[in-house]
Amino acid sequence: MASLKGKDILHGNQFSKKDIDAILKVASEFEKELKKKDGLPLLKGKIIATLFYEPSTRTRLSFEAAMQRLGGGVISMGSVESSSVAKGETLADTIRTVSQYADVIVLRHPRTGSAREAADATPIPVINAGDGAGQHPTQALLDVYTIHKELGSLKNLTISLVGDLKNGRTVHALVELLSLFQSKLYFVSPGLLRMPEEITANLKGKGMKIVETEDMMEAANASHLIYMTRIQKERFADLSEYEKVKGSFIIDQTFLNKLKKKITILHPLPRVDEIHPDVDTYSGAAYFRQMRNGVFVRMALLAMIFGKR
Amino acid sequence: MASLKGKDILHGNQFSKKDIDAILKVASEFEKELKKKDGLPLLKGKIIATLFYEPSTRTRLSFEAAMQRLGGGVISMGSVESSSVAKGETLADTIRTVSQYADVIVLRHPRTGSAREAADATPIPVINAGDGAGQHPTQALLDVYTIHKELGSLKNLTISLVGDLKNGRTVHALVELLSLFQSKLYFVSPGLLRMPEEITANLKGKGMKIVETEDMMEAANASHLIYMTRIQKERFADLSEYEKVKGSFIIDQTFLNKLKKKITILHPLPRVDEIHPDVDTYSGAAYFRQMRNGVFVRMALLAMIFGKR
Amino acid sequence: MASLKGKDILHGNQFSKKDIDAILKVASEFEKELKKKDGLPLLKGKIIATLFYEPSTRTRLSFEAAMQRLGGGVISMGSVESSSVAKGETLADTIRTVSQYADVIVLRHPRTGSAREAADATPIPVINAGDGAGQHPTQALLDVYTIHKELGSLKNLTISLVGDLKNGRTVHALVELLSLFQSKLYFVSPGLLRMPEEITANLKGKGMKIVETEDMMEAANASHLIYMTRIQKERFADLSEYEKVKGSFIIDQTFLNKLKKKITILHPLPRVDEIHPDVDTYSGAAYFRQMRNGVFVRMALLAMIFGKR
Repeated sequence: MASLKGKDILHGNQFSKKDIDAILKVASEFEKELKKKDGLPLLKGKIIATLFYEPSTRTRLSFEAAMQRLGGGVISMGSVESSSVAKGETLADTIRTVSQYADVIVLRHPRTGSAREAADATPIPVINAGDGAGQHPTQALLDVYTIHKELGSLKNLTISLVGDLKNGRTVHALVELLSLFQSKLYFVSPGLLRMPEEITANLKGKGMKIVETEDMMEAANASHLIYMTRIQKERFADLSEYEKVKGSFIIDQTFLNKLKKKITILHPLPRVDEIHPDVDTYSGAAYFRQMRNGVFVRMALLAMIFGKR
Repeated sequence: MASLKGKDILHGNQFSKKDIDAILKVASEFEKELKKKDGLPLLKGKIIATLFYEPSTRTRLSFEAAMQRLGGGVISMGSVESSSVAKGETLADTIRTVSQYADVIVLRHPRTGSAREAADATPIPVINAGDGAGQHPTQALLDVYTIHKELGSLKNLTISLVGDLKNGRTVHALVELLSLFQSKLYFVSPGLLRMPEEITANLKGKGMKIVETEDMMEAANASHLIYMTRIQKERFADLSEYEKVKGSFIIDQTFLNKLKKKITILHPLPRVDEIHPDVDTYSGAAYFRQMRNGVFVRMALLAMIFGKR
Repeated sequence: MASLKGKDILHGNQFSKKDIDAILKVASEFEKELKKKDGLPLLKGKIIATLFYEPSTRTRLSFEAAMQRLGGGVISMGSVESSSVAKGETLADTIRTVSQYADVIVLRHPRTGSAREAADATPIPVINAGDGAGQHPTQALLDVYTIHKELGSLKNLTISLVGDLKNGRTVHALVELLSLFQSKLYFVSPGLLRMPEEITANLKGKGMKIVETEDMMEAANASHLIYMTRIQKERFADLSEYEKVKGSFIIDQTFLNKLKKKITILHPLPRVDEIHPDVDTYSGAAYFRQMRNGVFVRMALLAMIFGKR
């Protein structure tokens, strides 16, 4: 694989199959070592800056925990401050300034393409922690790590992706990575929120088998794993459209009872009501384990970017 | 004592006399060691998450200083973020998620019972840093530590508690702990803000001597220590009621001059005008020392929860 | 020099020439060592508190990075929290409380004189990170460090200061320090925003040569270095006055082409449009290097205050 040392992490499509194998291997190694040790001080004296121009406490805390588990330091600009820090400043200037303080920048920004823009402005590595409707590659990597860990392999899987497939950058980045492996995908969404055609076409061009449906039960019964996503209110211009679709795709005990076999359930969280809390004790419910995996994967990426793995 | 290793800290009444003795001993040991050393790196590689759903910078900073003095790391969700992180998420889900990142959660939440709810949602220890009108046990422990340190003992004391005894969770938790020792208590408050009857009855049932009065001078002259509290504007539905009582219980130079003997003065801070700044140089004014003790007590609790003492 | 151990950093005029030489030497030493090592763990177990009563993420992150590069910890109160933490509390009380948690306080406050007030309230060192229209001494020190590094000396320099010289505390603190060396200064500003007369008179009294002008080109052609500042909208009561002057003093490629010789350009950042992005690739454009120098200078100050240099 190409070394990740000094590299930006901007887009799911920057990774080869070998890259993903290497990242998963390091993450798995860290997961094992953390069971035995209190932290892995590989990045002592190093500092990351977390710049969040929109709130995503979950992602920010995961990165900050990962860096501290590796013995490194964190400086952090919150979403509230971001408006005031700017005082009319361009993103490029902010990035260049923060580059003088930190060794790596983790950026969350509402504008698609902002992570690329940030990376172009600075010689230090930038990690895209979500850029608008664009990408969120570390989420995709932790999803792939979780799939591999839960199912033992990434090959010959059938996976259902459910919910808002139109606006969900999480699923867009995930299918990009899954396309490197021979998996079959069910896209389960209301018509209004179907996977964008260029993505579907691109996946088919890579030889992926794609089934588009509104029948979640059919898809689940054919799948090893179901990836649920929230139908995000804030993406809708027209709230009445949101009300129409929000209750359509829900996993609850009734749904599980009708399922023909055990299935693994992932969700990037937070959930609203698309997975009922009753489901949490189901052995296939892996969404909180998935959160924990995010720390191991981000530790792996950070260690590799700093050339420590 | 029952070990605190892996335990939640939720309520003042969870501690036995032996528990308190043990916590005070560890806190005192840490206080002495910190005078000789730069930090006590017992918790390297460990992480606490501070989740504050309402502002209490004082308590948050005290915990974060305690954890860092022990060599550990901190991830933090501020009160401003807490509204946005949720996106409709339940407290249980947020707690379960943050549990994947941190080893201990420190929670401040406006809803009584929320700390218990959080503890039920996760296998990792939860420390209640204030839950609405409920409890704030680490404050009570630092108060007891301060009383012990200032007066040399916790036995056979007479203590006056002054101010808003109705809504003050600080005093509620404190009297819970004091009831383990043979102390006599004066409850000094306006009629509107008297200690809730069930608490008073409960204390009497444990053999405590309780005197309820509106005469602060009488109480002070009979006491070794006076514990002042702020009459909290935000607890009043009717602001005219607040205006009526706020100036009623004030310690100033005039009050000290009339006192028959030296008294020790505590206050959980922040104060508004219930203790005049003139009093700060009085040798019995122990409220800033009390703040410092908070760090030692929280260090002791954290070290004990992690099984390092 | 007088040792900085345990000292407050409040005002540019507290430093002698020897002090500045000593600070610059330590900063330079740290800069070199950081190229070879991952951090300089001189302040392990020590904690600074950053208290920012108005937003200045840039300055805060620079201090927090400096402390962490030295192995120390940080507790932080953001500008948003500052309003709520107070609950009517005086600055002195907040400072005295935070003094119980941290070893050094870094304070940013909108009120002139607040840093002095804070220092009087506590025995621990206070660093003024900007107090209203008052001082910002660490900015002045990093500016002087940058001038020395870029030009190789602090003596016999001609320096132009451009922009809002009336309200700019940055330039006020800088000229204070420059007055210790034999430099000639051009004050370039619109009439409305001229350097306050008492400062100019004071500098002249110290033997400085001062030229006041509105002609930036004339000043630049006579100078080794030009220090640009933003014309700060928020300082203007009358916005129409702001609109009149804001575009008056701008460096762009056209300006550089007309210059007779290379010049070094500094700016405290953020900029709005007073330096065009085209200028960033000019070899004399030193304003991002200047940001980085801030970390080395703050590391030096912290280490010296803690008696570690």
